[in-house]
Amino acid sequence: MNKKTFVVLGFAAALTSGVVFAAPVHNNNVTEDEVLAAQQAWGAALLQISQDYTEGGLEKATATATAVLDQAYGYAHGPVLFKPTLTSGDTTFRTTQEGALAYFVGGNPDFPDSGFALKGWQEYHFENAAIYINGNMALTMGNVMLTNADGDVTTVDKTWGFKKDDQGDLRIILHHSSLPFSAD
Amino acid sequence: MNKKTFVVLGFAAALTSGVVFAAPVHNNNVTEDEVLAAQQAWGAALLQISQDYTEGGLEKATATATAVLDQAYGYAHGPVLFKPTLTSGDTTFRTTQEGALAYFVGGNPDFPDSGFALKGWQEYHFENAAIYINGNMALTMGNVMLTNADGDVTTVDKTWGFKKDDQGDLRIILHHSSLPFSAD
Amino acid sequence: MNKKTFVVLGFAAALTSGVVFAAPVHNNNVTEDEVLAAQQAWGAALLQISQDYTEGGLEKATATATAVLDQAYGYAHGPVLFKPTLTSGDTTFRTTQEGALAYFVGGNPDFPDSGFALKGWQEYHFENAAIYINGNMALTMGNVMLTNADGDVTTVDKTWGFKKDDQGDLRIILHHSSLPFSAD
Amino acid sequence: MNKKTFVVLGFAAALTSGVVFAAPVHNNNVTEDEVLAAQQAWGAALLQISQDYTEGGLEKATATATAVLDQAYGYAHGPVLFKPTLTSGDTTFRTTQEGALAYFVGGNPDFPDSGFALKGWQEYHFENAAIYINGNMALTMGNVMLTNADGDVTTVDKTWGFKKDDQGDLRIILHHSSLPFSAD
Repeated sequence: MNKKTFVVLGFAAALTSGVVFAAPVHNNNVTEDEVLAAQQAWGAALLQISQDYTEGGLEKATATATAVLDQAYGYAHGPVLFKPTLTSGDTTFRTTQEGALAYFVGGNPDFPDSGFALKGWQEYHFENAAIYINGNMALTMGNVMLTNADGDVTTVDKTWGFKKDDQGDLRIILHHSSLPFSAD
Repeated sequence: MNKKTFVVLGFAAALTSGVVFAAPVHNNNVTEDEVLAAQQAWGAALLQISQDYTEGGLEKATATATAVLDQAYGYAHGPVLFKPTLTSGDTTFRTTQEGALAYFVGGNPDFPDSGFALKGWQEYHFENAAIYINGNMALTMGNVMLTNADGDVTTVDKTWGFKKDDQGDLRIILHHSSLPFSAD
Repeated sequence: MNKKTFVVLGFAAALTSGVVFAAPVHNNNVTEDEVLAAQQAWGAALLQISQDYTEGGLEKATATATAVLDQAYGYAHGPVLFKPTLTSGDTTFRTTQEGALAYFVGGNPDFPDSGFALKGWQEYHFENAAIYINGNMALTMGNVMLTNADGDVTTVDKTWGFKKDDQGDLRIILHHSSLPFSAD
Repeated sequence: MNKKTFVVLGFAAALTSGVVFAAPVHNNNVTEDEVLAAQQAWGAALLQISQDYTEGGLEKATATATAVLDQAYGYAHGPVLFKPTLTSGDTTFRTTQEGALAYFVGGNPDFPDSGFALKGWQEYHFENAAIYINGNMALTMGNVMLTNADGDVTTVDKTWGFKKDDQGDLRIILHHSSLPFSAD
């Protein structure tokens, strides 16, 4: 160890006579890569529901959407803060899984939805404006562009909150989606 | 995108037609490298106090120890859970900075300490048994070996808890040190 | 201690021969009361900017808005995920304090805003749909109703993310606001 | 709302024309009560293992100790930072459940333990020096006094780290126990 270059005030400086041995490390924190993968998986899942609707009808699409909600959202552990793009009035917020499923595939008389995921989505594209990672949570905000079967692109402003669960999987616990503001 | 290989149930799978643009990322989480650097800095600071005592006497050592406590420990934000190696009885736990300073450099009539950091420490060495990282906190447990001026090595069992503050610096908020158990 | 009623498997059960002495407690977690107070303070601050604009003009309103951003938002520590109600296009997301200030009081040639906080707001009202608290962060989603000088009420869908800093103050690190979806 | 008493700089001040409606709240944070209950449960579990050993022999004690480790410790999710009171040398740190079980009930040829929980413990008593709560983790430091069948009291310096899991149960992820320092 070279004591001459040692600076007490630089607490985080790496100076050492000590050697660090490898130790098992347990790390619960979210990484940026996990966040980006979770976004991609959300997009892929949306396209899958659309494809399953085309190929297998509402029953198949509903099964797929249910699986997506089970796996990708945190409804099993409590309310999810979900404001879908096209909701309004008394059913604006979908804090239960039933409400979320209704939004994606429709068919629930308690909700006015026609099924957002049934619109034949073909492509998705993300442009994150910023990402905030804090412990086992991560927040993202940005644009999502979705392309339908006619090639029309819908752009939405989207915020997601993810939480890593005990198994190490990210789950969506917040999702606020809105159409861009138009002064018209 | 290759829909053929797409699997809905693999939520975290990276599948994509989407391209992710670079976005500013704010990440408050502790990393393993930061933890290892903080351990090294603690060892280096201990040696510095010893050296300052030799070269500049108690006054200089006290100034250095105070700086180390200000920078490396979290006393400014509340009690620190500190059980030093050689304390016992009513002054076992040093939850205030005054008690921690007394342990390192002695000279406080309210504490029986002779000054742990004044013992002419020359080298330090860490062997972590395990590291646990969770959000803005990290915990380590393992052995620390300290070598004094005579070349004698003291081994202690040591647990640290670190918390990253708003400025991104790790601070010790837990420190339990004990001599190895001996059945004698 | 009554061993007869003791149940090992009920780990969290409070059974005891032990007495717990009061100990200093350091708690960094966000509480629901803090979240509700922070929402109210945001509403009050918006009204204050409006009032200061009426009474003291743009200069006074800008000074107040700057103070609000300094105190209530987390721009000092990195990007804030802010999508204001009335933004669109290239300036949809205001991840810097400059962009946020422009939205509230206008007057910045780099942003097209006329000043959302200058609209003579008289009252605010919150209806949370759900609150999610996790460590030093809290998320809220719900409606905010704002009443202007003419008594007209604007309702928005609003999501906030708060983070408690080292001083124990909540700061907004996420803010997504959007007008209700209309099928028209 | 009384604008006269409104202070912008008091961000957290509760001032309002707004009324907050009840909303579902999801809160993952550890509370002080949960921490104290978990400590008591640990003490109660230790006594239960002792009692089961007396009444049912090693087999019953081992079954109970296994249940306690399954429920109260976090070994299922990774290494636990565990330094028991009476360990030393190569088996000082028990980062695996096998090592922890050996410490409590002995009988494992890979560990030199005679079974700490088999010592006929009758009473336990905690005196916390300080508690640190941060998100889904809590740390405690203080003394634990254990009374055996002869009425002899053993005092140890004990540090615990708890993490709340997805089911809302606290699990021990750090445990450093040591006999008080003696200058003799």
